Amino acid sequence: MGWDEISESVCQISCALSEVGDRWTLLIMLELSMGSRRFDALQAQTGISSHLLSTRLKRMEDDGLIERRLYLERPPRYEYYATPKGKELDAVLLTLRAWGLRWGQSPLGSDPSIAMTYKATGEVIDGHWQIPRGAPFTFDDIEASMHDSYRHEREAKASVFHQKIRRKKEAAAK
Amino acid sequence: MGWDEISESVCQISCALSEVGDRWTLLIMLELSMGSRRFDALQAQTGISSHLLSTRLKRMEDDGLIERRLYLERPPRYEYYATPKGKELDAVLLTLRAWGLRWGQSPLGSDPSIAMTYKATGEVIDGHWQIPRGAPFTFDDIEASMHDSYRHEREAKASVFHQKIRRKKEAAAK
Repeated sequence: MGWDEISESVCQISCALSEVGDRWTLLIMLELSMGSRRFDALQAQTGISSHLLSTRLKRMEDDGLIERRLYLERPPRYEYYATPKGKELDAVLLTLRAWGLRWGQSPLGSDPSIAMTYKATGEVIDGHWQIPRGAPFTFDDIEASMHDSYRHEREAKASVFHQKIRRKKEAAAK
Repeated sequence: MGWDEISESVCQISCALSEVGDRWTLLIMLELSMGSRRFDALQAQTGISSHLLSTRLKRMEDDGLIERRLYLERPPRYEYYATPKGKELDAVLLTLRAWGLRWGQSPLGSDPSIAMTYKATGEVIDGHWQIPRGAPFTFDDIEASMHDSYRHEREAKASVFHQKIRRKKEAAAK
């Protein structure tokens, strides 16, 4: 029994897992929530190979999780945005974050890589905070502030990625 | 950049994804929460190959998500249980279920494959219910009742799996 049979299950959790059940999809959704929009940025921050990233983005578009918008005509270049359906995966990411904060696998332990406060009440969103009742939660409901270590990690990833691209271009030009 | 680099990120979500970021791990945790304990049952219900299931269970044990208990001495056979750390992934599964109920990928749509009520208040847990404040949520906090379609699906999976095993044994005996 493979992927296809799982997505045919009547169980909503199994079905949901067949759409988002691997680290890449949720990691891409996280990047989109953080404002990464372009293929290069998604690749630099997640480290997915460009082949896997493009098939994955296509699939996520088919599943209605993301949409792409043309930002350059020639050559055609797209930016990626979460749909409302995709945006509501933020609650899953927040629940994973809370679990990560409680069980501390990150080098920062329970010190959040992104400090979050809930806009409506000003509460700090720690590993024990629960989503209030009301509309489905998205990261639009929060104020975020990035830990310096995480900012440095992200800058380093972007820099390593662009160096690699530059070297490839130089090698091709020789 | 691969798996290892992701798990070294300071971002708690990336770290959490490196432990649970694929459909198999969460699907196994779901089965454990539903009371499946033995290798065969996990394999029958998830459809994972036995090789992948045994490496995955080993890894989940190393990550502190599950523990195994000997139930048969000769040959040694184990039952699998969620640790407290693993059990708290129930909140992630519940959040995925809510998303699945709202966005309806299952053939049952918003009709839950497992109807759930919150023990403490008797509330029905639908796609919009939120976890109350207090201790971290686990499925111990709910009463569950399985939809007939889901029960049939699970019985069919178990039956197909055991037929396959029987045929293999018969073929080996010839």
